[in-house]
Amino acid sequence: SQVSLQEEFDDLGEEYETLVKQHEVYRTKLAELKKIQSKCLSLLAHQNKKYKQLQASFKGSVSGSSAEVREEDTVLQKKIQERQKSCKTMQESLPKQNSFLLKVIIGQISVSLLTREERYDYKEGYERFKLYTTIIMLIYSLVNLFIVQYRFIDAIYHFMIVWYYCTLVLRENILRHNGSRIKGWWVIHHYLTVLLSGILLIWPDSISYRMFRTQFMVFGVYLNFLQLLQYYYQSGCLYRLRALGEKSDLDVTIAEEFQTWMWRGLTFLLPFLFFGYLFQLYNAITLYMISRHPDCHEWMVLSSAIIFFVLFSGNSATLSKVVIDKLSK
Amino acid sequence: SQVSLQEEFDDLGEEYETLVKQHEVYRTKLAELKKIQSKCLSLLAHQNKKYKQLQASFKGSVSGSSAEVREEDTVLQKKIQERQKSCKTMQESLPKQNSFLLKVIIGQISVSLLTREERYDYKEGYERFKLYTTIIMLIYSLVNLFIVQYRFIDAIYHFMIVWYYCTLVLRENILRHNGSRIKGWWVIHHYLTVLLSGILLIWPDSISYRMFRTQFMVFGVYLNFLQLLQYYYQSGCLYRLRALGEKSDLDVTIAEEFQTWMWRGLTFLLPFLFFGYLFQLYNAITLYMISRHPDCHEWMVLSSAIIFFVLFSGNSATLSKVVIDKLSK
Ligand SMILES: CC(C)(COP(=O)(O)OP(=O)(O)OC[C@H]1O[C@@H](n2cnc3c(N)ncnc32)[C@H](O)[C@@H]1OP(=O)(O)O)[C@@H](O)C(=O)NCCC(=O)NCCS
Ligand SMILES: CC(C)(COP(=O)(O)OP(=O)(O)OC[C@H]1O[C@@H](n2cnc3c(N)ncnc32)[C@H](O)[C@@H]1OP(=O)(O)O)[C@@H](O)C(=O)NCCC(=O)NCCS
Repeated sequence: SQVSLQEEFDDLGEEYETLVKQHEVYRTKLAELKKIQSKCLSLLAHQNKKYKQLQASFKGSVSGSSAEVREEDTVLQKKIQERQKSCKTMQESLPKQNSFLLKVIIGQISVSLLTREERYDYKEGYERFKLYTTIIMLIYSLVNLFIVQYRFIDAIYHFMIVWYYCTLVLRENILRHNGSRIKGWWVIHHYLTVLLSGILLIWPDSISYRMFRTQFMVFGVYLNFLQLLQYYYQSGCLYRLRALGEKSDLDVTIAEEFQTWMWRGLTFLLPFLFFGYLFQLYNAITLYMISRHPDCHEWMVLSSAIIFFVLFSGNSATLSKVVIDKLSK
Repeated sequence: SQVSLQEEFDDLGEEYETLVKQHEVYRTKLAELKKIQSKCLSLLAHQNKKYKQLQASFKGSVSGSSAEVREEDTVLQKKIQERQKSCKTMQESLPKQNSFLLKVIIGQISVSLLTREERYDYKEGYERFKLYTTIIMLIYSLVNLFIVQYRFIDAIYHFMIVWYYCTLVLRENILRHNGSRIKGWWVIHHYLTVLLSGILLIWPDSISYRMFRTQFMVFGVYLNFLQLLQYYYQSGCLYRLRALGEKSDLDVTIAEEFQTWMWRGLTFLLPFLFFGYLFQLYNAITLYMISRHPDCHEWMVLSSAIIFFVLFSGNSATLSKVVIDKLSK
């Protein structure tokens, strides 16, 4: 067996040599890529700056010009906008500087996904992550509601929510960094939820806490159920968009099919979503009532009432806006 | 001014054309790079697997062989180890799969830093981040100790610690992913600290809390001061290692200078560190005493006593091991 080991080792030598050579080529290409990347980036930055300046000069020279001049202006402006759009497309395959938040959390490491493929993969991973966590939290909240009733076990649930939403904030910032159009409100929504769960976490086991506990757990169950529905909608959208992107961008039938599917999904989802928001309003009202109760001494009660109310308002407003925008398109 | 705008726009056209061309080249190179990257990765994976198998076969065939055979074995094993080492070096400039923890937190996005330069930059950013946060927390804990005494303001401090250590866990996982030899204990240490601060966060404002508060704030001040000292040591090491790496790897004088500097720094730091660990032991003892007090009804007291004791033991053991390892080298 000793001889055969030696032989096996020798057989690997050839592959090893190939690897070393390929790796050399790889290193060279990597260095070249970095070079041309930074060249593209600096050209792009210069172009962007200049177009912005040009756009700004228009604003200064609007008044007091003849119709002819104004028309020429419009033509030029259109051209500039086209250039800007094209620059934006080029930007997509180049790395970007991290935003302040990303810098603070993970530091100056590039989280740019440079190809469409990678971006879809990442978003799919994000949806899957939400699905698994939602299932775990759904089970946990059901257990909390019907079987175990102990403040410490509740605290773990609140901690899980804090952790979950912190992770979401991070991942959604990475998605936004890579061009996703997630509305700003959802990010604010997650921060508020972290704050809310933080407050619920430190709310001591008191009369007021017990008055609200059952309702909160029912709400938790409903919210997790809602998130499951949402998962089916969002991952369905994603799956179809991906198929769409892989075909020609101009394939009208598929695009229309997508629209139809999206509307069907959304119409199904909307009542459940609005019911969830009404539940938030109901929570706000209940908490406000509890805060006026003579046995209530905790500041947590009124603060969470306020946060629930803000969540209700922001969610309803954003969702209405999304629906109206989609309708008018 | 209208004409000059048009002129300015035309002037940008040439640069724009260059950009478009360069970007085309960049896209091609990027695709090529991905291809050769995955080729290298698959070759490397195969080689690694084979060498591991070979190593395993040796273990099976040790007994019952002559001295001559055993010597040949040793020679072969050395060769295999060399190959493995060389494979590891090549791995450094190739992306790696994320660990489970990284997958759970930020998902399947590559956080591999492919050049030595980038790795140093990232670590420097990490040290700077620790410095800034430490300064903020030092000021905050001084204010808490001497000026403001309000449970809610304390809660913000505990929340800051939770957030800070969560961020550290994430960043240190990225560092480890990129080949840093941070000891496993420090990662466990951060988890325990998050747990501890979580417990302090939900500890209601009670007699036991007030009994421990001042001591904890003094400890906080000392810890932040300690972290400042540590910053000067770690960033000094990093700065010198970086200079070392940029010169020849075999420059013996510089390497010795580094050793001297490191030992000077370490000798200065050690007493402060051990005093900090004794402080943790003292906290554990105080908390244990409080937990036996008749007015103490909170489970948080004994649990944090235990965690402080575990921190004390783990820190002392790890630090002693680090010093002994360094001495014997
Ligand atoms: C209403 C809703 C279904 C519409 O989804 P949509 O059709 O994808 O909406 P938009 O067209 O505005 O989406 C724009 C982008 O934001 C993303 N997005 C929308 N809502 C999101 C949310 N709540 N969280 C994360 N991402 C979201 C979309 O995936 C899309 O991403 P893309 O640019 O990468 O393709 C969605 O916004 C939603 O589920 N909202 C409810 C959230 C909620 O209420 N959660 C529970 C709180 S009680
Ligand atoms: C004792 C000490 C100064 C030694 O530092 P060192 O000389 O860098 O130690 P090592 O040689 O073992 O370092 C190996 C690696 O781990 C890193 N490292 C060591 N201790 C670390 C810590 N506590 N946190 C983060 N990284 C650490 C080093 O930077 C080095 O990184 P590299 O591989 O990228 O170069 C350091 O471990 C330390 O500061 N420990 C005390 C931590 C502590 O007690 N914190 C407060 C709790 S009360």
